[in-house]
Amino acid sequence: MKAIVIHGPKDLRIEDKDVAAPGPGEVQIAVAAGGICGSDLHYYNHGGFGSVRIKQPMILGHEVSGHVTALGEGVDSLGIGQLVAVSPSRPCGHCTYCHKGQPNHCLNMRFYGSAMPFPHIQGAFRQILNADATQCAPADGLTAGEAAMAEPLAVCLHATRNAGEMLGKSVLVTGCGPIGVLSILCARRAGADRIVATDLSDFTLGMAKAAGADETVNIARSPERLNEFAAGKGTFDVLIECSGAEPALTAGIHAMQPRGVVVQLGLGGDMRIPMQSLTAKELHLRGSFRFHEEFHTGVSLMRKGLIDVRPLITHSLGMDEAVQAFELASDRSRAMKAQLNFT
Amino acid sequence: MKAIVIHGPKDLRIEDKDVAAPGPGEVQIAVAAGGICGSDLHYYNHGGFGSVRIKQPMILGHEVSGHVTALGEGVDSLGIGQLVAVSPSRPCGHCTYCHKGQPNHCLNMRFYGSAMPFPHIQGAFRQILNADATQCAPADGLTAGEAAMAEPLAVCLHATRNAGEMLGKSVLVTGCGPIGVLSILCARRAGADRIVATDLSDFTLGMAKAAGADETVNIARSPERLNEFAAGKGTFDVLIECSGAEPALTAGIHAMQPRGVVVQLGLGGDMRIPMQSLTAKELHLRGSFRFHEEFHTGVSLMRKGLIDVRPLITHSLGMDEAVQAFELASDRSRAMKAQLNFT
Amino acid sequence: MKAIVIHGPKDLRIEDKDVAAPGPGEVQIAVAAGGICGSDLHYYNHGGFGSVRIKQPMILGHEVSGHVTALGEGVDSLGIGQLVAVSPSRPCGHCTYCHKGQPNHCLNMRFYGSAMPFPHIQGAFRQILNADATQCAPADGLTAGEAAMAEPLAVCLHATRNAGEMLGKSVLVTGCGPIGVLSILCARRAGADRIVATDLSDFTLGMAKAAGADETVNIARSPERLNEFAAGKGTFDVLIECSGAEPALTAGIHAMQPRGVVVQLGLGGDMRIPMQSLTAKELHLRGSFRFHEEFHTGVSLMRKGLIDVRPLITHSLGMDEAVQAFELASDRSRAMKAQLNFT
Amino acid sequence: MKAIVIHGPKDLRIEDKDVAAPGPGEVQIAVAAGGICGSDLHYYNHGGFGSVRIKQPMILGHEVSGHVTALGEGVDSLGIGQLVAVSPSRPCGHCTYCHKGQPNHCLNMRFYGSAMPFPHIQGAFRQILNADATQCAPADGLTAGEAAMAEPLAVCLHATRNAGEMLGKSVLVTGCGPIGVLSILCARRAGADRIVATDLSDFTLGMAKAAGADETVNIARSPERLNEFAAGKGTFDVLIECSGAEPALTAGIHAMQPRGVVVQLGLGGDMRIPMQSLTAKELHLRGSFRFHEEFHTGVSLMRKGLIDVRPLITHSLGMDEAVQAFELASDRSRAMKAQLNFT
Repeated sequence: MKAIVIHGPKDLRIEDKDVAAPGPGEVQIAVAAGGICGSDLHYYNHGGFGSVRIKQPMILGHEVSGHVTALGEGVDSLGIGQLVAVSPSRPCGHCTYCHKGQPNHCLNMRFYGSAMPFPHIQGAFRQILNADATQCAPADGLTAGEAAMAEPLAVCLHATRNAGEMLGKSVLVTGCGPIGVLSILCARRAGADRIVATDLSDFTLGMAKAAGADETVNIARSPERLNEFAAGKGTFDVLIECSGAEPALTAGIHAMQPRGVVVQLGLGGDMRIPMQSLTAKELHLRGSFRFHEEFHTGVSLMRKGLIDVRPLITHSLGMDEAVQAFELASDRSRAMKAQLNFT
Repeated sequence: MKAIVIHGPKDLRIEDKDVAAPGPGEVQIAVAAGGICGSDLHYYNHGGFGSVRIKQPMILGHEVSGHVTALGEGVDSLGIGQLVAVSPSRPCGHCTYCHKGQPNHCLNMRFYGSAMPFPHIQGAFRQILNADATQCAPADGLTAGEAAMAEPLAVCLHATRNAGEMLGKSVLVTGCGPIGVLSILCARRAGADRIVATDLSDFTLGMAKAAGADETVNIARSPERLNEFAAGKGTFDVLIECSGAEPALTAGIHAMQPRGVVVQLGLGGDMRIPMQSLTAKELHLRGSFRFHEEFHTGVSLMRKGLIDVRPLITHSLGMDEAVQAFELASDRSRAMKAQLNFT
Repeated sequence: MKAIVIHGPKDLRIEDKDVAAPGPGEVQIAVAAGGICGSDLHYYNHGGFGSVRIKQPMILGHEVSGHVTALGEGVDSLGIGQLVAVSPSRPCGHCTYCHKGQPNHCLNMRFYGSAMPFPHIQGAFRQILNADATQCAPADGLTAGEAAMAEPLAVCLHATRNAGEMLGKSVLVTGCGPIGVLSILCARRAGADRIVATDLSDFTLGMAKAAGADETVNIARSPERLNEFAAGKGTFDVLIECSGAEPALTAGIHAMQPRGVVVQLGLGGDMRIPMQSLTAKELHLRGSFRFHEEFHTGVSLMRKGLIDVRPLITHSLGMDEAVQAFELASDRSRAMKAQLNFT
Repeated sequence: MKAIVIHGPKDLRIEDKDVAAPGPGEVQIAVAAGGICGSDLHYYNHGGFGSVRIKQPMILGHEVSGHVTALGEGVDSLGIGQLVAVSPSRPCGHCTYCHKGQPNHCLNMRFYGSAMPFPHIQGAFRQILNADATQCAPADGLTAGEAAMAEPLAVCLHATRNAGEMLGKSVLVTGCGPIGVLSILCARRAGADRIVATDLSDFTLGMAKAAGADETVNIARSPERLNEFAAGKGTFDVLIECSGAEPALTAGIHAMQPRGVVVQLGLGGDMRIPMQSLTAKELHLRGSFRFHEEFHTGVSLMRKGLIDVRPLITHSLGMDEAVQAFELASDRSRAMKAQLNFT
């Protein structure tokens, strides 16, 4: 089978790999669709991010779906031919955090396509994948592309849950890449009343609007709108920060009402934040990282038509167009979610 | 103007009442629609409920909307002719609970059409009503009937919020009168995944299904389904108990997973409950009573099309058909919400 | 070695049992002290409680401490001769609830001395006990009797945590057996301001007072005090119900302020409760069942002198006086905690 | 009467002021003791902090106690001669936040001795003070000095409550001025198990140890201890950051366990924080600002002997030694809390 392997910045190769039989409890999957995520782009463009760097060739990819082609010993919950979304999250099940109900903080996590730890955890951009049956959410009725959105959707559902009860809340979403737009869908699904989205790109703000944002603000063109949000003691109950950019978080903090909840979802480096404003308004700033049961939740909500991710999938390219797809996905003025087709 | 006055069980009269000018901060409203609530029916059918009894004639009604006809001194937030939903909740704003952010527990509450305290608080089933501008939620774009649903909707939004974060949760709703069906709409709006509804009436269960319940159970016909829900350590994350009936709460407790949340919304008398099951599963049983900011929230969600209450309004009768309307509203096999038309 | 075995109501026997070597990860313990709990008394006096009945002979006991006498393979966290408190809670570590951080709801729990499930889980009233090292909390500096209080203390710490943040709160404790008095110590440790305790026994109320209750009420003699607590919208922020008695819970509900938290810790059967009061005041009633990390927490707090359980240990008898000890422990007018001495 | 007035940096004057009679609902108080707070020192040393600057002469002081000398109309809850702690917090009672149960975020707050808003709110370092009876907590049995500690104690109780349920938790306190040491007392009172305190001063760390810290770390001398705390996924459940210093917050974030709670209490300017660590560990960072009901709570806990603040009062000087007292209070190597004596 073929797999997409990163060797270094801008050095992406399609390589032949051996195929093993599925072990006990596993299924073999013919991967159908795979979405390119921001972390894939960091590996592709820069060889990593922060202290996380590629030290050996690594198969990329962690947003995939596919069809079951073989069942390992003891698997009876899935059927041959069935479309499944495959969770890339593989906690150990034995450490302190797994037993605390926080498997996303597992001490021995093996998350697909991740250069941390070393040796790296190989990814899922490959034609054949063996996965535990428990990683697979049946996706009958969805397209392969939708099913491959389950992972970023789970990230956003987890963040939305971290924001707490949201019925009737006023929500600001900063950063309108796939994570931002999915967060808008999730906030709306969770009962948010007013949703405002900000970004620097009119293309992504258009997607945000289509996803249900009541108002979109291009902060490059209309920075004064942020001042209006910050007037008095601020405007919003909830901020979902999806850009990982310090100015977005800073402006967001000023825009919050006392006791508002800020969920930091975008990953960036160190950030200088207006701590006096955060303190005096008693904001609650909560980090959100990956997901757990939200993977199956998201697939279920999509299957019921309660969340529709299809408009976000702007591009689908063949596996052999991988480089072109990675370049496209890097361009926020044209692409929202670019996916690869492995069939 | 005319008003609908209860004098005793089955003694409902339409009477002439004087009209005053709106005071400072008030508006005068030509009442358009008024929904008949369970408590109105208790006064009509039995002269009250529990220790709450009619001791003097009282104008009924607390679910109303209407058009603004005059502005009192200092009111500039509303306009003549505007449709408004009128909140029946009038906390004092000065007591301990008002200052704790719990105005629904106000020590001096004056809730429309309530026989507690004495002298009774007169209700809103009348042609002309003076109300504080702050009681009024602008309802532009809604029908008068929808706007009159704001009050029971607020009750259910409050209960849903009392259940906590609900994204992806599995929810049981027991009792499918207007409060139950609205709770289904609210739970879905708040992100519930699976919703199961129970009742004894096929008519109301049909409404529950139309409102989005994934499964409905007529417990008279299929009591064994409850046993299936109770198997193992139980099935549901959340129970919204809307019937006020002891068997429904008891069955619901057995159907809950450990650490699940039970919101008791239906009002009944003393109830015998399986406390050992509740204790051993560490359930959280929370009472939910009336509402506060959820009144405006509900109107906003309806105006955005995020909650659609129209299918619940099964009957609308003229003011002079009040007795007929009260009889209809008492019949769960034919009526969901019956409203009166005051124009 | 000898063990204390229950065969039926009032049929308690001291029997010889074989001793095995400790397995991998286990330690062998010479049991020193063992406290008699309410559930032990139920087995002794009635052969069980509710649907939980003895069907075969069962070693009783789950509140024990002892000295390590041998280390199984791989154990290096404990030393020979060390005093340890032994947790009777043995969740499987693999089920849904273990992975949710709720091991007290483990689907395969093997809790010492419990007639549920069948075959029964044998208890710890024996001279020699093999236990997992992870069940053992080092108790250096404590007496064996104090260490044997770790289990009921953990139950009460868990209940106190279920009551939520308690700094400055006003707390009612109903039922002043060992669980009630330990709950007073825990509530005080957690920062409660005013603590009121109720019971029917002057002896236990005296212990409650000594444990730090600001006021004690013998409800047989001063029932009117309950009416004073219930006046207006009620008095207390928190109720820790330790009696399992319906009248205590009912009176407690009436004594609560709106939005107050009721923790049901006492185990009883079905209870008839004033649901209208609970609903209208939006009380939060939470069951509390067993414990998890609180076992180690309690030992640590005792070792630091932050909780002093010694006054509660009113009796310590030899193993061969077991029947006398069980009779004593059943008498609330003389005994708080009766312990057995196994050395 | 005389009052202590700040005119600019290092320009502190004792001036004569007129005395008015207490109005309805007020009492007149002969101020006894007044503690010098960090914000008083900012005004004294620098004329303000951040954007908060003195623009006109202002009486300093907001940590005071005194004896009631006269009762205004309608006051019957206090008696002549009674010692009271006086809360400097005077919310309006009418704004959105007052009605949300968040009076510390009052839009019209008039907090004693505060240069924000303008005209400034005059302070309480004066011989005679008229205050609302509701601002006064009866302090019978306390010394005037202890009673004057009620305000900073309330700040720390509020912060401790913001940290959530704390029974058995592992707590790091960074910065051991009066706020840090009081936070140690509060964390212990709230049930914390292990408490570690850090600072740069051996003097204040000695006070922290005396207040109950299990371990103190002088981070200038033992910075490697911080690395030990940060090892793996971190050590602490709770951080109470009392220094307002960026390095303390940064080190604290690295020392936290996943899902830990960081309470930012120290006021500083903008801070650069390790957002990736906060996000990946899903920390909860909550600002804490002032207090409300905790003022009365703190006085009650002191009166019961449950919190003992006396060791913190290292200096008490006469009103005419005010300059000397402010210099002393600025010196962390000698003074914890310096108070003025107004009698």
